[in-house]
Amino acid sequence: MFKFFKKKKNIGNFPGDLDLTAKKTRDFKTKISFIRYNNKDFQIDEDIEIDEIEEKFNGRDINWIHINNSYDYNIISKLGEKFDIHNLVVEDILNDNQRSKIEKWENYIFMVIDIITTENDKNNFFNDQLNIIFKKNLLITFNNKNINFFEPILKRIKTNVGYIRKKNISYLFYALKDFVVDNYFLVMEKINDSLECLEDELIEGTSDNYLHRVYDIKKELIQLRKGSWPLRDIINKILRGDFELIDDDIRIFYRDLYDHVIQTIDVIESFRDVISGLIDLYMSSVSNKMNKIMQFLTIIGTIFIPLTFIAGIYGMNFKFMPELEWEYGYLFAWGLMGGITFIMILIFKKKKWL
Amino acid sequence: MFKFFKKKKNIGNFPGDLDLTAKKTRDFKTKISFIRYNNKDFQIDEDIEIDEIEEKFNGRDINWIHINNSYDYNIISKLGEKFDIHNLVVEDILNDNQRSKIEKWENYIFMVIDIITTENDKNNFFNDQLNIIFKKNLLITFNNKNINFFEPILKRIKTNVGYIRKKNISYLFYALKDFVVDNYFLVMEKINDSLECLEDELIEGTSDNYLHRVYDIKKELIQLRKGSWPLRDIINKILRGDFELIDDDIRIFYRDLYDHVIQTIDVIESFRDVISGLIDLYMSSVSNKMNKIMQFLTIIGTIFIPLTFIAGIYGMNFKFMPELEWEYGYLFAWGLMGGITFIMILIFKKKKWL
Amino acid sequence: MFKFFKKKKNIGNFPGDLDLTAKKTRDFKTKISFIRYNNKDFQIDEDIEIDEIEEKFNGRDINWIHINNSYDYNIISKLGEKFDIHNLVVEDILNDNQRSKIEKWENYIFMVIDIITTENDKNNFFNDQLNIIFKKNLLITFNNKNINFFEPILKRIKTNVGYIRKKNISYLFYALKDFVVDNYFLVMEKINDSLECLEDELIEGTSDNYLHRVYDIKKELIQLRKGSWPLRDIINKILRGDFELIDDDIRIFYRDLYDHVIQTIDVIESFRDVISGLIDLYMSSVSNKMNKIMQFLTIIGTIFIPLTFIAGIYGMNFKFMPELEWEYGYLFAWGLMGGITFIMILIFKKKKWL
Amino acid sequence: MFKFFKKKKNIGNFPGDLDLTAKKTRDFKTKISFIRYNNKDFQIDEDIEIDEIEEKFNGRDINWIHINNSYDYNIISKLGEKFDIHNLVVEDILNDNQRSKIEKWENYIFMVIDIITTENDKNNFFNDQLNIIFKKNLLITFNNKNINFFEPILKRIKTNVGYIRKKNISYLFYALKDFVVDNYFLVMEKINDSLECLEDELIEGTSDNYLHRVYDIKKELIQLRKGSWPLRDIINKILRGDFELIDDDIRIFYRDLYDHVIQTIDVIESFRDVISGLIDLYMSSVSNKMNKIMQFLTIIGTIFIPLTFIAGIYGMNFKFMPELEWEYGYLFAWGLMGGITFIMILIFKKKKWL
Amino acid sequence: MFKFFKKKKNIGNFPGDLDLTAKKTRDFKTKISFIRYNNKDFQIDEDIEIDEIEEKFNGRDINWIHINNSYDYNIISKLGEKFDIHNLVVEDILNDNQRSKIEKWENYIFMVIDIITTENDKNNFFNDQLNIIFKKNLLITFNNKNINFFEPILKRIKTNVGYIRKKNISYLFYALKDFVVDNYFLVMEKINDSLECLEDELIEGTSDNYLHRVYDIKKELIQLRKGSWPLRDIINKILRGDFELIDDDIRIFYRDLYDHVIQTIDVIESFRDVISGLIDLYMSSVSNKMNKIMQFLTIIGTIFIPLTFIAGIYGMNFKFMPELEWEYGYLFAWGLMGGITFIMILIFKKKKWL
Repeated sequence: MFKFFKKKKNIGNFPGDLDLTAKKTRDFKTKISFIRYNNKDFQIDEDIEIDEIEEKFNGRDINWIHINNSYDYNIISKLGEKFDIHNLVVEDILNDNQRSKIEKWENYIFMVIDIITTENDKNNFFNDQLNIIFKKNLLITFNNKNINFFEPILKRIKTNVGYIRKKNISYLFYALKDFVVDNYFLVMEKINDSLECLEDELIEGTSDNYLHRVYDIKKELIQLRKGSWPLRDIINKILRGDFELIDDDIRIFYRDLYDHVIQTIDVIESFRDVISGLIDLYMSSVSNKMNKIMQFLTIIGTIFIPLTFIAGIYGMNFKFMPELEWEYGYLFAWGLMGGITFIMILIFKKKKWL
Repeated sequence: MFKFFKKKKNIGNFPGDLDLTAKKTRDFKTKISFIRYNNKDFQIDEDIEIDEIEEKFNGRDINWIHINNSYDYNIISKLGEKFDIHNLVVEDILNDNQRSKIEKWENYIFMVIDIITTENDKNNFFNDQLNIIFKKNLLITFNNKNINFFEPILKRIKTNVGYIRKKNISYLFYALKDFVVDNYFLVMEKINDSLECLEDELIEGTSDNYLHRVYDIKKELIQLRKGSWPLRDIINKILRGDFELIDDDIRIFYRDLYDHVIQTIDVIESFRDVISGLIDLYMSSVSNKMNKIMQFLTIIGTIFIPLTFIAGIYGMNFKFMPELEWEYGYLFAWGLMGGITFIMILIFKKKKWL
Repeated sequence: MFKFFKKKKNIGNFPGDLDLTAKKTRDFKTKISFIRYNNKDFQIDEDIEIDEIEEKFNGRDINWIHINNSYDYNIISKLGEKFDIHNLVVEDILNDNQRSKIEKWENYIFMVIDIITTENDKNNFFNDQLNIIFKKNLLITFNNKNINFFEPILKRIKTNVGYIRKKNISYLFYALKDFVVDNYFLVMEKINDSLECLEDELIEGTSDNYLHRVYDIKKELIQLRKGSWPLRDIINKILRGDFELIDDDIRIFYRDLYDHVIQTIDVIESFRDVISGLIDLYMSSVSNKMNKIMQFLTIIGTIFIPLTFIAGIYGMNFKFMPELEWEYGYLFAWGLMGGITFIMILIFKKKKWL
Repeated sequence: MFKFFKKKKNIGNFPGDLDLTAKKTRDFKTKISFIRYNNKDFQIDEDIEIDEIEEKFNGRDINWIHINNSYDYNIISKLGEKFDIHNLVVEDILNDNQRSKIEKWENYIFMVIDIITTENDKNNFFNDQLNIIFKKNLLITFNNKNINFFEPILKRIKTNVGYIRKKNISYLFYALKDFVVDNYFLVMEKINDSLECLEDELIEGTSDNYLHRVYDIKKELIQLRKGSWPLRDIINKILRGDFELIDDDIRIFYRDLYDHVIQTIDVIESFRDVISGLIDLYMSSVSNKMNKIMQFLTIIGTIFIPLTFIAGIYGMNFKFMPELEWEYGYLFAWGLMGGITFIMILIFKKKKWL
Repeated sequence: MFKFFKKKKNIGNFPGDLDLTAKKTRDFKTKISFIRYNNKDFQIDEDIEIDEIEEKFNGRDINWIHINNSYDYNIISKLGEKFDIHNLVVEDILNDNQRSKIEKWENYIFMVIDIITTENDKNNFFNDQLNIIFKKNLLITFNNKNINFFEPILKRIKTNVGYIRKKNISYLFYALKDFVVDNYFLVMEKINDSLECLEDELIEGTSDNYLHRVYDIKKELIQLRKGSWPLRDIINKILRGDFELIDDDIRIFYRDLYDHVIQTIDVIESFRDVISGLIDLYMSSVSNKMNKIMQFLTIIGTIFIPLTFIAGIYGMNFKFMPELEWEYGYLFAWGLMGGITFIMILIFKKKKWL
């Protein structure tokens, strides 16, 4: 079972009290990447030190700092000071398992969204949290899991196809969210495949561990819903024009993104319906199979009951039992039993019990 | 299982990046139809080339271009350039499985609605997506499946009965949506028939594959709901007068359409109730039948138990068993067994177990 | 199963295209009634011809035309022309199975509401659709089924008791709706009686066809909900004062009507809760009864198992079996079996299994 | 089963037609009480005649008329005339089973609320309807059931403790509602006790008639919900200041009342959750117990099956059966059977089936 | 079963009638603590008398009075007089089981919130009610249970780390609520652990008392929901700026708190989904196990049926039974029985019934 949340901090510490936040051990080394590009040029530096950022920063280009492993107190707080980020925001970054949200601060936007993704050829899903700080000319992103999540976007920057290098930093901010939602679709497609698979198994009658797998999908849907519902509000706020940092000509793209988030929510609801239908079908198919078996066995038993009774009759030791003396008694007994069997099978066949 | 969605595009491509959209292979040849009519005259050209459109276009008449197979990248993008359509719209057309929506662009309306229909004498349903671009004097429609969906409307144009040739292009735009909703009613009628059929089967007791069929109807209802819920919002927006391209005197017809969509939604909900009732009935009838059988068999078994016991008694080999020596012992045993049987059947009859 | 809807018209016909509407055969002869009254006088002509209306019409009195059998294309369309009714309205009248609604047209109000009623001493329900056109000084009503629905109102007009002859046409318009809702109460009372009956049967244990009857009530509730939900909106609109044709001093009566519709909706929801409770009770009582029987039979079988075993033991043919030679062997065997039976019954009684 | 409603009046009568309202027979004698008090003095007259009211009325004090048995047409209509009450209101009072509501009339407020109460030491619940007419200096209340509902309030007036004699008539109007909601709490406490009791029974395993009792509580909750939901709206309206008759300094008390009604609604929802949990537990405990029994019996049966088989083997009459001739054959048979029994019990114990 | 509420007061007493409120016996001695601090200094006095408060109070510092055991009528009412608190508020404090709320009074804020907490190493939960009165420079808090709830906050004040001593009284007011919500997270983490544990047990197959434990969690969730839903409204009101007593620069912290409350609500809903999934899994696993056992036993029985029948056959006493005379008859019988057993096991294996 995945954790739906972790304790947000030590009980009794209050938001903004950075000096009290537990300095957690790093699960893996924090990796800082620095990407700088404009329409003509680009520069990608992976795995740099925190102090190198200043010299690389260039006010005229689009600057993007990505920090992988946002648990690292020293680096995050140093960054916070350097770029004048409020302590509450720094703390939100340090603590994962936030709810997705967008916040407007004096001269920057802070955003949290859920990453849900999957590897192409495997069946497991990853959850992560993406924190974005969006200032004029600078985008800082943080995530926790040790995955190369943004590889495809970097490739797009390198190869300079599509809008990404041609548009400004607002577009990059948009593109990251679009990419996250794309991954929701990827996950939903996997779930769709799993459901198709579950549906086929029902017809073929091979269904090991059925309900556990359904239950896993259910939990994945809960995760998706947790990611997409707040996202709808976030994009709605952007569409309403609450944030001046986002260029007006980029806002039109959000209409598209909004549609996709709504569609995600719709599909999740449809999946829930489909799943409840599958569970009904499975339950009834299991009990059906079980009933068929029990019925068959009971009928076999029922056929033998009168036969055994007859054998019992002629096993009685009465002195005067005419059949026993009769030369064809034994044959007669077999005939009787054969006849009864035949009639019973006939009756059961007619009643469609067999 | 139908797909509720497909991956919207390659992960890492962003909306509007047309040059990166996968150029899909065509499932079948793209067919372009051009219809031009006014009150006096009409001209229908089926299966023309993309370049012939320009010469056929006539600003004073009503022009309607229908493209069957909207997967064709070359044709759609060429059309987009010719008629000045935004890349985001072109991309929406190329990718099916959009959510139904209406969008107002600078000088045209873009609309996506779900087609759900069925062939008259068969039991299967089709899903398709209808994209409509509505400009002054020009309507471009796109769908994907290889079906002659609009045949009845063309017939109406040819025969010039009713309003269609008498009213302007706003009416045609309306008529297409009305036609789509008519098809929803057709589908619901089929579902209604199926439900009646399922209900009758319950009473007659012949119900193979019952739950699978119910499950199929459930999925069809999910599809209908996916189509009709956003349609309500769309028509609502039109009724509010958000779109100047739609003539005011045509807007009155949308009131009618709105009623039908609301009715669709109502009926879908009613169907869900009816279905849950049918499942309850079916489940209980199945378990009832099963229980009846098991009970009957168990009673048969129970009747024989004491009989076999008596036979066992008189099969014992004790030296001193007075009954065995008795001349009428055997008869007495039969009488005893007959009596017990009679009494047991009487008891069971009285208790209504038999 | 009642139809929740019928195909609204031929696919491909558009609203307002009257010349294309199928001219349906009449199920029974259309009956036109003309009622004219004022405070002093009244005149009721049943079964008149369509052309007689003009001469009977009197601008100073309250005129009410009731058409029974609104399927009749010729008469309805002729009426439409005579009183200047829009084609969309005429079509709505011709096609039944509309959703309840109220529409404001230039100089008249068009209203559709569901009639749901029952005969006093029978258990079946009728569904019908009541179309009302409300002009200054004239009310035209249409219904489809061959029932004398408005008998009690006519009686009130004839006897001149209460407000009906004293107030103006707005009151008559109100009175018709009030009468429809009264019939909802009648239906709910019948359902209430049925539910009480179903509840009693559960306690008495006589319940044939239980779930089918519950299911029928469920369908009736769906029908009631379909009738009452839109009615709430309709009356709300009237209370808000959207319609100038309705006199202000009559509007106060609608407050009362609104309460009754809300109550109808409440009661329907309560009934749904009660029904789900009854189904639970029934299901558990059925499985309980079944389980009791199976348990009883199994215990009977279990008691005989060791007895038969003992009989089997002493039916063995070993040469050296001391009990067989023993003079009281047979008695001992009976004693043994009696003892075992006694002990087993004791145990089962103590465990409350018997 | 309690009635959720009664037919509101004779079908075909319209609201306000008082002369047509059925003059119902009185179930018990109508009792009129007249209470008059101010800060210094009070006077309570029980069981007076309708004509005595006028002389007792005193414009400077607080006057409260309580009518027990509001079915009495003569008295209610006479009161209506005397105090200038609209016919629609009079009719609402005469017909019980109204939905709770508050209505503002020209110079008075009319209010209907549901009384739900219980006797302290018994388990049954009463439903009644309280109608209140609130004029300047005069409060008229009506209820139907023959219970001394307001005893505690009268006692408070007599003993002059608390606010009641010190504040004005607005406070009395408030106090009545507060008292009604207090009774809801009383009922909920009884239900809470019943649920605790049901919970305990599950653990102790003694649960006769379980589901019927749960079902009764469910119906009581439906009743409570019917009472409290409209009450929320009513108090909301008062808090918004829609009614000038209610003094501003009394309105602060309604904030408290509002909290209690909201709490009632919350608790009802919680109870529904608890109940559904209890039903699940009960169902599973019943089927568990049943299964345990059947499993035990089946295992007993299974243990005897091979034993009986062995007895059968040595009951065969073959000429050449070496064991039969063997001196210790009988002992061997017993040993064999004992061994098999031992092994089987061992296996079943290990598998935890026994 | 925890009580969802208690009777709010004696029936017939009205809010604000302090002199009528039952003077409850104290469950334990009321403990008054006085905390006074500023940025430089602090003073904590535990267990003081009510009359000592006045002399300790210091208008320039932050004063915090905490009363443990708010049932004590004498102390609470004396405090009320001293600090000019309205009788309705005093009464709310005296009666626990209020719904969470925030109320604005003339010169103070009154707030009620639910405390739900748990001891770190145990599995039981505590419910309590926290009443807060917030005046300029003074915070009075009340709770009922005998627990040292605020220990961690006092420690923070003593050690002067973080914001708490640096900010003003608005921050303390905020910090208390934040601390309460922190405890919700603690409880949810415990529930999360319990659910993980329940999930593991399902896989391992060891699940005693499963549904009772699930039911307990369900009730805990109801409690959490009761606490967090009204809290959302409360914080919303604060964020909207309804309360001038709360400093604007502290309001930013409430954004954080709001996120956490929303997250609480989300997680509760997710837990409900997870729980319903677990119940499904458990139910099906139980019935599966049961079915497996019954099926196995029935098959064992079925295998022996024909064997016993054969033994019965050769136990018959017919004079002329050739097999009996045959030298290898006995061996043949064994062979026959062995063969039948072998074939049956083969069939059952092939059908996967064994």
